[in-house]
Amino acid sequence: MLITSKDNKYIKLYRTLSSSKKARLEQSLFTLEGERIVRDNPDSIKYLFVTEKYCEKYPDAFIISSEIAKAIALTETPQGIFAICNKPLQGEIPDSGKFLVLCNLQDPGNLGTILRTAASFNISAVICANCCDIYNPKTIRAAMGAVFAVQIIQTDLDVIFEHFKGYNIISNAAVLNGENVLNTDFKGNQAIFIGNEGNGLTEDIIERCDRKVTINIGGMESLNAATAAAIFIWEMNKF
Amino acid sequence: MLITSKDNKYIKLYRTLSSSKKARLEQSLFTLEGERIVRDNPDSIKYLFVTEKYCEKYPDAFIISSEIAKAIALTETPQGIFAICNKPLQGEIPDSGKFLVLCNLQDPGNLGTILRTAASFNISAVICANCCDIYNPKTIRAAMGAVFAVQIIQTDLDVIFEHFKGYNIISNAAVLNGENVLNTDFKGNQAIFIGNEGNGLTEDIIERCDRKVTINIGGMESLNAATAAAIFIWEMNKF
Repeated sequence: MLITSKDNKYIKLYRTLSSSKKARLEQSLFTLEGERIVRDNPDSIKYLFVTEKYCEKYPDAFIISSEIAKAIALTETPQGIFAICNKPLQGEIPDSGKFLVLCNLQDPGNLGTILRTAASFNISAVICANCCDIYNPKTIRAAMGAVFAVQIIQTDLDVIFEHFKGYNIISNAAVLNGENVLNTDFKGNQAIFIGNEGNGLTEDIIERCDRKVTINIGGMESLNAATAAAIFIWEMNKF
Repeated sequence: MLITSKDNKYIKLYRTLSSSKKARLEQSLFTLEGERIVRDNPDSIKYLFVTEKYCEKYPDAFIISSEIAKAIALTETPQGIFAICNKPLQGEIPDSGKFLVLCNLQDPGNLGTILRTAASFNISAVICANCCDIYNPKTIRAAMGAVFAVQIIQTDLDVIFEHFKGYNIISNAAVLNGENVLNTDFKGNQAIFIGNEGNGLTEDIIERCDRKVTINIGGMESLNAATAAAIFIWEMNKF
């Protein structure tokens, strides 16, 4: 089916989902672009949109003009393949494993990069408390498919701490003045808490965690949140 | 001195330097915003622009209206403090130490994040070969002052390899199929080569390096370039 107008209802839906967190929440749908991620996750796709060059490869897709592709694309030189997807169902927090807890993360790109890292190192679940939307198109883009590859749970701090206490999962707060991460024993069930890009973890969260852990640096005041998350995951995964 | 027009020559210079790599190159100047970075690097500042709330603190600055601040700002809610800075002088590649070599990096935010990480871990020098401009405002913003805190050298691959061979600095290519970085001996003078975000290092560069090193992952095909750089620097710095 050929779509030639930006007023087409499916194109309007795509644009609304791209720009509105509320719409993504209400409809449990989100958007993504790029051939690789579409090809790797066929079961999640509800509507597929392609420019002419992909129409033989994806005969059931809506065909869109390159003008429409440019209008809905996040990238400046779009590949010409777009999808509206069903959000993965959110599961329960696992009873054991290695966890990453993100608190008040506000930069969509940072969040996506962290999801990609967590998926790369087979983290049991990433738990988001009061973060920006994981289905923001910028997050999805930086995550490079990780949204389908790692379990992501959005919940609140009380639920997280109650679960961790119930299952003896040790909570480690990433701070600037804690125990050197190189001396930390990450054996068994462990979780790393990473805070907001500008302000780190709140005092309240730090107090509720079992331990404080630190990446020792010199030369700068702090690391980027995604960089810190990567090094903590890397060290935690050695156990 | 009060500036009320966007056509003021200093404001025009700021905007030109923000948007044009060519202008930054020709004038050896670049722009930055934010109070912290201005306060920490007074000697680099050529012209300072502040909104009224900062005018007592910075009596020698140009005073600009909030409309002008919004027009020249990279951020949506600017602090109201902007500077045109002299580029740091580029030094020679040191004869010894731990190095990071960036090849064909094209994402300004990624580059800035990597500079911040390199400065945090006291890397001897970051050497850029055919990367995007380190003085791009998005790079400067992600680098959080690292451009003043770590030595950055822009040069070409022949110069780099000749220098490394001359001083017995071991060159390590970051690839997907090399030796596990956890088994790598980074004693002495070492350099990690990181490639382009989408394509990694070229075959030519990989062949010219002494060794191939890899961060083993599962679940995803690759790490973000800044994430990979952080983990390699972290492991190299243990020696």
